[in-house]
Amino acid sequence: MDNDASNSGLNRRDMLRLLGAGAVAALLPSLLPGTPEARGAEIGREGGFERAKGQGIIFVVGDGMPTGVVRAMHEIRTGVFGRKDSNLYARLRDPKSSLGYMATASLSSIVTDSAPASAAWSTGVHTVNHTLAALPDGRPLKTIFELLKPRGVACGLVTTTRVTHATPAAWVSHQTDRDLEDAIAEEMLAFKPDVLLGGGRKHFDAAKRKDGKDLLAAFASAGYDVANDRDALLAAPASAKPLVGLFSSSHVAYYVDRLNDSNLSKQPSLPEMTTAALRRLSKNPGGFLLQVEAGRIDHASHSNDAWSAIMDTVELDDTLGVIDAYLKVNPRTLVIFTSDHGNSGWGVNGTGPEYNDATSALRSYRAGKASFEATIKRMKGKSVGEIQTLMAEMSGYPISPADAELVAQAMQPGFKSFPGDFVYQPDATMGRILADSQYPDKHGAPTVRRGNVGFTSCNHTAEDQLLLVYGHKAKEQGLDRLVANTDLFGVMCRAFGVHHANPTMTLAEARPFLLAKAVDTESLRRHIA
Amino acid sequence: MDNDASNSGLNRRDMLRLLGAGAVAALLPSLLPGTPEARGAEIGREGGFERAKGQGIIFVVGDGMPTGVVRAMHEIRTGVFGRKDSNLYARLRDPKSSLGYMATASLSSIVTDSAPASAAWSTGVHTVNHTLAALPDGRPLKTIFELLKPRGVACGLVTTTRVTHATPAAWVSHQTDRDLEDAIAEEMLAFKPDVLLGGGRKHFDAAKRKDGKDLLAAFASAGYDVANDRDALLAAPASAKPLVGLFSSSHVAYYVDRLNDSNLSKQPSLPEMTTAALRRLSKNPGGFLLQVEAGRIDHASHSNDAWSAIMDTVELDDTLGVIDAYLKVNPRTLVIFTSDHGNSGWGVNGTGPEYNDATSALRSYRAGKASFEATIKRMKGKSVGEIQTLMAEMSGYPISPADAELVAQAMQPGFKSFPGDFVYQPDATMGRILADSQYPDKHGAPTVRRGNVGFTSCNHTAEDQLLLVYGHKAKEQGLDRLVANTDLFGVMCRAFGVHHANPTMTLAEARPFLLAKAVDTESLRRHIA
Repeated sequence: MDNDASNSGLNRRDMLRLLGAGAVAALLPSLLPGTPEARGAEIGREGGFERAKGQGIIFVVGDGMPTGVVRAMHEIRTGVFGRKDSNLYARLRDPKSSLGYMATASLSSIVTDSAPASAAWSTGVHTVNHTLAALPDGRPLKTIFELLKPRGVACGLVTTTRVTHATPAAWVSHQTDRDLEDAIAEEMLAFKPDVLLGGGRKHFDAAKRKDGKDLLAAFASAGYDVANDRDALLAAPASAKPLVGLFSSSHVAYYVDRLNDSNLSKQPSLPEMTTAALRRLSKNPGGFLLQVEAGRIDHASHSNDAWSAIMDTVELDDTLGVIDAYLKVNPRTLVIFTSDHGNSGWGVNGTGPEYNDATSALRSYRAGKASFEATIKRMKGKSVGEIQTLMAEMSGYPISPADAELVAQAMQPGFKSFPGDFVYQPDATMGRILADSQYPDKHGAPTVRRGNVGFTSCNHTAEDQLLLVYGHKAKEQGLDRLVANTDLFGVMCRAFGVHHANPTMTLAEARPFLLAKAVDTESLRRHIA
Repeated sequence: MDNDASNSGLNRRDMLRLLGAGAVAALLPSLLPGTPEARGAEIGREGGFERAKGQGIIFVVGDGMPTGVVRAMHEIRTGVFGRKDSNLYARLRDPKSSLGYMATASLSSIVTDSAPASAAWSTGVHTVNHTLAALPDGRPLKTIFELLKPRGVACGLVTTTRVTHATPAAWVSHQTDRDLEDAIAEEMLAFKPDVLLGGGRKHFDAAKRKDGKDLLAAFASAGYDVANDRDALLAAPASAKPLVGLFSSSHVAYYVDRLNDSNLSKQPSLPEMTTAALRRLSKNPGGFLLQVEAGRIDHASHSNDAWSAIMDTVELDDTLGVIDAYLKVNPRTLVIFTSDHGNSGWGVNGTGPEYNDATSALRSYRAGKASFEATIKRMKGKSVGEIQTLMAEMSGYPISPADAELVAQAMQPGFKSFPGDFVYQPDATMGRILADSQYPDKHGAPTVRRGNVGFTSCNHTAEDQLLLVYGHKAKEQGLDRLVANTDLFGVMCRAFGVHHANPTMTLAEARPFLLAKAVDTESLRRHIA
């Protein structure tokens, strides 16, 4: 917190005590005092950017990033990692920034999913949940990318999710079913974005696609530079050629896993991908529009995985550092920073006497060395004893045999331990165990209950979202107030002198097209796995 | 939601079906179609205000009002009560408004309580949780009221809590222990605010105070008009004399209870209290500073009582209508609207296939006819069968015998049904039962799960809060960005030409003074009961 930078939470000795004497070898860099910087963040600070040939808009999305995780990220950056400030909070405080709120409802619900949320930005029109840039009846909507590309504006997409996932997809694809990612991959190829970086290789890979089409080869023969691992991305010349890089079969790994698991070193960081994208796009004389998505803050929130959500938000903050460096060289750039919807409540709860343990309780999540996703992958098919060892090792919290038994039960289909929409299991159970755990307190109390990051469900939520705009003419965009998500389409159009109005439908007209199928846990999990 | 005004949720016939045939007589005005307006809201719209003699600042607090309940209020006003817009959302969208965020951490914790949060506004200094306008070591801090009153500025406090509760108290009192409300009442008398309206009569009443002092008589002999019920408040002449009105022994009843229980008709509404306050204060040639607090949005959130929180926010929105009418006559008025901290996550969760049931699920809370507080009061000492009948009648949802049994258990001391800091019981259990309930859907589906408003705990939360400023020179205050809660002190000082800097302490200096006592449920409940 802002006024508590002197209290650095658990120190290294506390950590060793917590983890046990045998844990020294397991201590990984992210656990040590100091500031972990996402690989690639330093590129920006070193000022590796050249002057751009045209104007640019960078549209930055923290997907499903509630205000709770934003505050937690700032606290962890400053209170644990020792940074004087976060990049995001510096911009939030800057009088030159424009600050507002964005309403997120879709046509079909007060709670949107990422598909119509991103389509609202890209088309200026509300459509129904599950649908990309199309009306509920299937009529395609013209996207901002489709309007700008013929006018010579370069278009880029950078994400930590599959590039065929809803937020990037809605700027290109016209599917009414966001799950048809093989088809969305074909639309990506047909559209030919100037930069396409993220995960989702399986939807482009001849061996993995049902139709056996080799879309990666097709990108290469269309003149793309192809960089499918970090080394290739960093080695690629900063040419003006289009660039595709698909660094993972599905989503890019969580930042906490990339920091701690050397097997994931082939995946670049979000700052690195953003740096590569800006270097390419800025060579285009007609300017550019780049969407940068930290897409897995959403996934971690769905999973009630507090530490992974915080760390992916830390990586997003590092990405803002890259963008800051870009803006120094290229002040004619507008940055729009927002989230598409809330997720899971994400409350840093007051804990302890008069809530005075809340700061150290939040900081205690720093012991985490792996996402729930990575932990669950390793726990599959294991005994209760092995589950106990694995979760203790990966969360940094010595869970009890009873807790391990509960996690084992939660891994069985149909498990329900507590009321509410906690549909991702054993994830939500693991989140509860950590929230209810104890940790040593360096200020004398023997142990303190954590009880800290709580969730309202595993689902999205309805509250209005943060809207931060800075850079070129930021204050002239009319975004320093509550706006609809659809308003951002007009802002991007005006910046490039485009006029376009897409058709609309009412909810009454849309109702016959709503999906009424039951949603089971497995079909929900497809979005985040 | 904004784009779904045609879908008006449960209709009257649905309600009757839900409640059973015998329920016709129980149908109260708030359940019928139409727009319930808080009593007093019409006063403002009728334009009963005169031109003020000086400038004014109205500082409006939705205590513990998370952004989730703000969005839910707007949805209920427009989608259920048929209003075209809410007063709050009109101001949030208005380009003339200034919109920002406010950080809320106290000196001792990332999660504040209302005492240091309000003291931050009134003194410009961070103190520790539980402490009013004082440093942790007890040194008093000069409040904005104490700075302005000697300069001829009239000072007013209007609240739905006890007037001795933290948010109003921190503008007058220097207690390090906010719970010493008898002593705070004496400080109120010593300070002599020009307007003091709300609950908390027991702390001024000779028969209820431990020391037997009659503070109400003391106010009267100090020249105050005394109006201790609604009729007296409405009948009181709009004189320039100071005014005290204490309308309840403890807090003013929840708005949903005042709407539905004729026994509470002696309590005025927040718009009525605000109207009376503005009529008095505006007669002061030196101008005025008025704090208006909707203090029980916080209490309902602590109790995980979604409908009471929404309806108290609706009443706050009506209060903004009164202020709008005042501003029409008195444009030289600055309005600051914010919340002191988050509370309980308060997430409107996505529910149903593709979240498409979320809007109607939220609207289904409209069946509520009583707060949890009022319901629990009536359930005390009752059988499980009686509990079932009472909760069904008051929540509008026919709970099962198993649910009634769970509520009965939750009324026993030490009850713990699910993990997490759900310390207010049976409140949180009742919130869960409603969130997990089913309701008839008018669009053909037989019944739909509610699963809607979820909570992260019964405690405050850390996320930054909404900061809306409008009226006189709103855009010149530098509040269109992220600020600290302490910054609002400087804004109020500057508006009246005052310069003052209070002393500060660091967390390290404060630590010896932190309360380290264990917090049990009963001592927590003292704040909201």
